[in-house]
Amino acid sequence: MTGKARAEFGPGGEVVFVNVGTPVVEAAALAGIQLQTPCGGRGRCARCRIIAASSDGLTLPDEVERTSLSADELAQGVRLGCRAKIIADTHIWIPPASRLSGDAILEAGLVEGITPQPNVHCTTLSLSEPTLSDQRADLRRILAGLGIESGDNGTELSLLRDLPTRLRETNYQPIAVAVGDRLVDLRTPGTLEHVYGCAVDIGTTTVVAYLVELESGKVLGTGSAPNPQGTHGADVVSRVEFADSGSNGLATLHEEAITVVNQVIAAACAEANVLVDDVYEITVVGNACMMHLFVGVTPRYIARAPYIPAFDQPLQLSAAELALHINPRAQVYVLPNIAGWVGADTVGVLLSTRLTQSAAPTLAVDIGTNGEVMLWSGQQLLVCSTAAGPAFEGAQIRHGMRAAAGAIAHVHATQDGLALQTIGNLPPVGICGSGLLDAVAELLDLGVINSSGLMLEAAALESLSPTLASRLQGHGQQREFVLARPEESGTGKAITLTQADVRQLQLAKGAIRAGIEVLLAESGLQAVDLERILLAGAFGSYIDRVSAVRIGLVPELPLPRIVSVGNAAGAGAVMALISLAERHRAAELAETAKHVELSTRSDFQRLFMETMLFEAS
Amino acid sequence: MTGKARAEFGPGGEVVFVNVGTPVVEAAALAGIQLQTPCGGRGRCARCRIIAASSDGLTLPDEVERTSLSADELAQGVRLGCRAKIIADTHIWIPPASRLSGDAILEAGLVEGITPQPNVHCTTLSLSEPTLSDQRADLRRILAGLGIESGDNGTELSLLRDLPTRLRETNYQPIAVAVGDRLVDLRTPGTLEHVYGCAVDIGTTTVVAYLVELESGKVLGTGSAPNPQGTHGADVVSRVEFADSGSNGLATLHEEAITVVNQVIAAACAEANVLVDDVYEITVVGNACMMHLFVGVTPRYIARAPYIPAFDQPLQLSAAELALHINPRAQVYVLPNIAGWVGADTVGVLLSTRLTQSAAPTLAVDIGTNGEVMLWSGQQLLVCSTAAGPAFEGAQIRHGMRAAAGAIAHVHATQDGLALQTIGNLPPVGICGSGLLDAVAELLDLGVINSSGLMLEAAALESLSPTLASRLQGHGQQREFVLARPEESGTGKAITLTQADVRQLQLAKGAIRAGIEVLLAESGLQAVDLERILLAGAFGSYIDRVSAVRIGLVPELPLPRIVSVGNAAGAGAVMALISLAERHRAAELAETAKHVELSTRSDFQRLFMETMLFEAS
Repeated sequence: MTGKARAEFGPGGEVVFVNVGTPVVEAAALAGIQLQTPCGGRGRCARCRIIAASSDGLTLPDEVERTSLSADELAQGVRLGCRAKIIADTHIWIPPASRLSGDAILEAGLVEGITPQPNVHCTTLSLSEPTLSDQRADLRRILAGLGIESGDNGTELSLLRDLPTRLRETNYQPIAVAVGDRLVDLRTPGTLEHVYGCAVDIGTTTVVAYLVELESGKVLGTGSAPNPQGTHGADVVSRVEFADSGSNGLATLHEEAITVVNQVIAAACAEANVLVDDVYEITVVGNACMMHLFVGVTPRYIARAPYIPAFDQPLQLSAAELALHINPRAQVYVLPNIAGWVGADTVGVLLSTRLTQSAAPTLAVDIGTNGEVMLWSGQQLLVCSTAAGPAFEGAQIRHGMRAAAGAIAHVHATQDGLALQTIGNLPPVGICGSGLLDAVAELLDLGVINSSGLMLEAAALESLSPTLASRLQGHGQQREFVLARPEESGTGKAITLTQADVRQLQLAKGAIRAGIEVLLAESGLQAVDLERILLAGAFGSYIDRVSAVRIGLVPELPLPRIVSVGNAAGAGAVMALISLAERHRAAELAETAKHVELSTRSDFQRLFMETMLFEAS
Repeated sequence: MTGKARAEFGPGGEVVFVNVGTPVVEAAALAGIQLQTPCGGRGRCARCRIIAASSDGLTLPDEVERTSLSADELAQGVRLGCRAKIIADTHIWIPPASRLSGDAILEAGLVEGITPQPNVHCTTLSLSEPTLSDQRADLRRILAGLGIESGDNGTELSLLRDLPTRLRETNYQPIAVAVGDRLVDLRTPGTLEHVYGCAVDIGTTTVVAYLVELESGKVLGTGSAPNPQGTHGADVVSRVEFADSGSNGLATLHEEAITVVNQVIAAACAEANVLVDDVYEITVVGNACMMHLFVGVTPRYIARAPYIPAFDQPLQLSAAELALHINPRAQVYVLPNIAGWVGADTVGVLLSTRLTQSAAPTLAVDIGTNGEVMLWSGQQLLVCSTAAGPAFEGAQIRHGMRAAAGAIAHVHATQDGLALQTIGNLPPVGICGSGLLDAVAELLDLGVINSSGLMLEAAALESLSPTLASRLQGHGQQREFVLARPEESGTGKAITLTQADVRQLQLAKGAIRAGIEVLLAESGLQAVDLERILLAGAFGSYIDRVSAVRIGLVPELPLPRIVSVGNAAGAGAVMALISLAERHRAAELAETAKHVELSTRSDFQRLFMETMLFEAS
């Protein structure tokens, strides 16, 4: 199956052109539509149901579909997005239930198997009025109504001051809201049907909030926004430098963190038509530096050896003291960090991927500016952080860019040309991380790049088609490969992959792979022992696994055993929000994870030198 | 032994005139000098050592003194203030060790047998510096140094923000201050030798703070001031009315409470030359209304039936949120209340008197505007509150006044005249509670007042000496007895006891006595079953026990079994401050005490009618 096909999606009318043979879920993703695939696209969960306008555009239902879908459904054109592949121009309807409002893997992972056990409860009380023979104090009466017997339950002064009036205004029938055993609010009947929480993932680049109805554990809305700290530097180290600069660098970054968290929570609430005042708890993940900036603590000593965070254990703070615009008595639970460079986001990944519940050795990698590597040996949990640098996010790459509209996301070399996929199917304006990986992988296969990472001259490449050879230009360190000629690009200028870009990629992938190798060595394991490799984070969701293996970013395993798990950090935050058991597990994971400090490892530099190279094809 | 003697005290030079036969401790008390009498003046503790300038002025050493004091001491004129009685003009030296800086019974009660087990500790840490092989977070390193393993120990944000810098500034050798398991401060070495606490007793009239060095449990200073809320009404009910008046009545009373607490703490600290910033915990007692005003919660529903407090269990608050001028991260522990009219002050009395540790039935009465009655039956602890009204504090009495300079504190009728004792030995300007009791008791004995409380006409009193008879004037409800003639008084006007005054006293003593009788009945006990009666509070310290029994304020017991225990409420606050075990006991006492609501008792009105009367002499 070769050639391109046009896919149009309803109800939004998004259009993409995809290679013939592309599964519907992938085509939909290219169009910006996330389908629910909790089973990882293995055809097990049947949540990615789509409806084909006609049967002409798709492959015939396979055995999985015939098992999962009823005869009626099949007759109506219902298909599984993960199984049906596009073979010709087609029109596909995405039912709302199959669509994810937020992040695919997050919600998918959650819907499965987590019993809500929230920390926040609201209860409509029906209390007896006090009499001379029942003179219990107001607070005691309320707590008794909630089944709480604690002597000093830490009721906040602001609530205590409202208590007598509020209790009588509501005629002793208030809605009591408790966080754990702590009474936090008395609401007038009819003003609160459900209590909500938000799981917040403060990424260095993007901040996301997931609004959760706490009793059901359902994610009802999401909000996301760029991290405004980005104006002070794209990466963590430049943020730390900014925090230390001037008199109020830290205060500025702290305020920006609070502002954006307020913004994404408000957006998530707006999407679900929920009042921010009904949000009584948030859980927060992010790298340790982001966690420090969020609470207003200097990250200075994280950034310099020996990389010490001020805190690593979980924090319980109040929304009011952080000036968060949710219920002022809401609780803020900051998930634990493991080390200065292995933060609460990694704990979130460990939690949501159930890494330590695997029977066989499993590797997880969260790829970003820093690559966190997690290895569960079956007995021991090892983690390390590698300084991958920003290449995967498009920085320090000549024509690099983030995964935004017009970014070359995938590259496929054909006999005599290049097939580029761009985000939004627009003329290319740059190359993002997944495109970079593909481009290098393809050029390795074509022999344009050799195993040491050197970009060869066209003259030395006899087998290269003239069309491709004509794309190779410049000499020595200036050599570059033209991905899009000026007339093909959206900028009117050529978009190229340079020799220097290849070197950046080598540094990035070498760092991560060396981290993987150190942890394997530490566990006495080899790559072949791994049952699965989980790729976490947005980048891990978009990259072509074949390319990732080809450039040696991760060890070679049969493709089905390399799985993208999406925003697993955010998923962990949601899990810690909806279940106290999960929250305790997160704390345990943070305590039991063994952090391997790579800078003290004599084998790391050697492995890094080796893993920077590419395998000969 | 009759007649008067002059006693002068060194080193201060105070002079009082006392009846021959007055024990030195009583004479000293009249001069404003409190001696240590932890044993209750039974000659057991030998802490009230005084030195007589010559042996002429005192009784000879009795057997107790000869046992308690060494031959050397006796030779030097050392005597026990509780045993030695003044028989002639004398000069007595009070050694500093025998003198109490603050409240006699408080300190005396404390010094005995309480092992300090404070909630606050300061520890000079000597931590290892972090390295690449010891990357523990700052907070974890510090907590480990303190032997605290808690995952989330509630470290306050303000401290967390200081932590990294403070730890490095002190070269990893900080002084760590912890309240319970919660780290609250890191101090620079050399800036903190001891940690301090304050026990605060917020009386309706007077507010007292005791500064305690927490490791030793020693009271180092005291501060006291009138409660500035007094300008809005002398009693609790008028405070509650003021709190409800206007828009900021409650805020005003709350601010006044905070202001005066700050003031007395500052005074106590100044006395001991301690910085308020080194005070890391305070315990607070007072009646429930005072506790509500202190934390800013409306006392409205305490004042009206069914008398419901907003809270009764202990509160743990932060100094910062209450705007207290001690260390901003200090903890404020408000002792529990038992009921709306049986407050934390009563819990303090229960704690410090060890009431429930008595083998035999024991009664305790805290006499003030409200009389709280506590009865330990040997098995059960009963408490009730009686509305005694302000008569004992001199209010609603024609010439009533507080126990201040010039107040008639004691009255003794002789064959043909009256002996008045005034505070400070000044010409009388009014009569305070203890004088009122004495006056009525004496007039009962003289037959001037009959058992129904009626003041008789002189004509009807054949046995009355003409001198005394001449003091009886007016008719019917206007009848009055002249205690000081214009020429004898400090005001130039007569100071009299009126028929209406007698009625006020009857109401007051009847209320308290009826409360006692209800509790006795509830326990199935009779007055004769009581082993001891403890009189708590300032008033309880000053009254003549003979007079108290004579007017029927308390049941008749042999005098040695009626014991004044002073500011037992404040003593309880100190005990709860210096020992967590005592604090827990206080909470237990509050939970186990059975509150008897007198207004629901059918027998209370009947008993009140009876107890308002006096026994025939």
